[in-house]
Amino acid sequence: MARYRPEILRRFVALALQRAGAPEEEADLVADALVRADLRGVHSHGVVRAGVYLERLQAGSIRPGAALEVVRDRGATVLCDAGGGFGVVAACRAMDLAVQRARTHGVGVVGVRNSNHCGMLAYFVLRAVSQGAVGIALSNADAQVAPYGARTKYLGTNPLSVGIPAGEEPPVVLDMATSEVAHGRVRAAALRGERIPPGWALGPDGRPTTDPAQALRGALLPFGGAKGSGLSLVVDVLAGVLMGARSGPEIVPLYEGLDRPQGVGHLLAALWPEAFCGLEELRARVDGMVRQVRALPPAEGFERVWLPGELEHRREVEYQQAGIPLPEEAVEVLHRVAERFGMTPPEAVG
Amino acid sequence: MARYRPEILRRFVALALQRAGAPEEEADLVADALVRADLRGVHSHGVVRAGVYLERLQAGSIRPGAALEVVRDRGATVLCDAGGGFGVVAACRAMDLAVQRARTHGVGVVGVRNSNHCGMLAYFVLRAVSQGAVGIALSNADAQVAPYGARTKYLGTNPLSVGIPAGEEPPVVLDMATSEVAHGRVRAAALRGERIPPGWALGPDGRPTTDPAQALRGALLPFGGAKGSGLSLVVDVLAGVLMGARSGPEIVPLYEGLDRPQGVGHLLAALWPEAFCGLEELRARVDGMVRQVRALPPAEGFERVWLPGELEHRREVEYQQAGIPLPEEAVEVLHRVAERFGMTPPEAVG
Repeated sequence: MARYRPEILRRFVALALQRAGAPEEEADLVADALVRADLRGVHSHGVVRAGVYLERLQAGSIRPGAALEVVRDRGATVLCDAGGGFGVVAACRAMDLAVQRARTHGVGVVGVRNSNHCGMLAYFVLRAVSQGAVGIALSNADAQVAPYGARTKYLGTNPLSVGIPAGEEPPVVLDMATSEVAHGRVRAAALRGERIPPGWALGPDGRPTTDPAQALRGALLPFGGAKGSGLSLVVDVLAGVLMGARSGPEIVPLYEGLDRPQGVGHLLAALWPEAFCGLEELRARVDGMVRQVRALPPAEGFERVWLPGELEHRREVEYQQAGIPLPEEAVEVLHRVAERFGMTPPEAVG
Repeated sequence: MARYRPEILRRFVALALQRAGAPEEEADLVADALVRADLRGVHSHGVVRAGVYLERLQAGSIRPGAALEVVRDRGATVLCDAGGGFGVVAACRAMDLAVQRARTHGVGVVGVRNSNHCGMLAYFVLRAVSQGAVGIALSNADAQVAPYGARTKYLGTNPLSVGIPAGEEPPVVLDMATSEVAHGRVRAAALRGERIPPGWALGPDGRPTTDPAQALRGALLPFGGAKGSGLSLVVDVLAGVLMGARSGPEIVPLYEGLDRPQGVGHLLAALWPEAFCGLEELRARVDGMVRQVRALPPAEGFERVWLPGELEHRREVEYQQAGIPLPEEAVEVLHRVAERFGMTPPEAVG
């Protein structure tokens, strides 16, 4: 796979976003978030998404320069309206606000309504972690998942993420969809003509399927049965309903109705360690825990135990040096973008 | 199965706790929490636990009358020390404090260190819901679960619970261990001489087992693979490490070392709907969502779709009328307690 320098990708995506009407600051932020996902090996949320963001920008459903307007403010909580702007931009600003409030009040919870797809949640919790806070991010998403026991889709992949500062170790970063797999993995299997494992999805007849084409017309399954399904529903309420955002089937799918804002909701929260055990103690004990868990004897079929976010952190260090190995779909998207905006496609590393 | 009136059980357990040294207020609260679990059909956290609570009370590892002392207070956050008292009592007081702070600040987060087993988390989030708040409860627990990819136990069953007010519908109450099953279900299978399904546990050799006796000497598995394992670790950090409580293998197991306080940590949080979309809107939209999800066509092998906490709510209504069908283990515990404290065992209905 061809590798690409992150700064080249960042510049390319930011320039395309600016040509489509995004202010420089927003373009830079969105480009950084997408490339950060690729750096962490989370390609489903990387530059491959630049295509649909640009289409939505040009169709007017992502509104460039939208302010994050405060609807309600209680000090430790703020409810904001994203005005149909970039989800990434709204979630970044909301997380920074949450951290600022957490410094004073011990906790900050910022809700966002009227937003769009915000990409990889780890990006926002890492923003909190880099400021010395514990970061929590939830977002709802358009209906793709059948609740446990149902045969039709109703819930989104409704991801949640938690980031915890460590000391010498990389931070603990949990970032997970509440579906068994992301929609993108089913799409990828369909493109490659492969089967999908049982447990991923139902067909349009409501029966389990291993045919990705059937799955795409049916519904994804929640991870972990009733528990994952319950978590997904709770994420939809906390990030969506409670924030006055759309929820479940009301949300406009990312790749459909490109002229209509999605209406997604987010919840960004920060806990200030000094209000609890203190940052130094937290860092030291998380380091200890990470080392103990990593040193546990591996189970049959495993080479070692990985902490949440550890593999992604390793990739980030490696790809920063050696360039990012972009999957073919992402390279194709960049070429289409280059053509559309009269730009030179990014060059692979020598 | 013999049925028992909830008020009879409550009075019996409260009296036993008082005879073992608990102040009346604490005895009533703990008895109410245990019986509420049985009312909801969550018998693993019901009066069956009265036995070990009483033993710990008599051995001095649960300290009756311990105050919930404030260690740090930032307004929206409070860090408390439970002084080795009842987990149930500490978590109740902490949730009430969280709701009180949420009324002012929009959110309240109360951490508890130096606590003991607190039973069914739904009890605390329902306390928040009955005051018009969204309730969130996390607790860590002693090491019984192997992290994903490990062959030995390190994490607790580390449960999490979220309660959301509805209008005419019962509240949405998610309450789940982050292990595939509770330890109690493996113990029950061992007692009955039954096999357990694959995916529940590893044996002491670190290999998957369907023999409950092997499982009890080995480790439980997290639910949902790497995702459930990551959630469990995050719960341990947020409820334990961040609160300055013990974590993972440092926690004294409930049924071992009865003279040593467990050192468990809890996190109780409340979100005040008026700081977000407003309580009336929340209630109306949650009602709508509940009705839509319930009406989804069921998948193969299911008769209908259940909302989180709905089945438990139904049982509560039924058992309140008809009495609680207590499992045999619970009845045996009550008889042993009656003998130890010179009391008459509770009588079954009719």
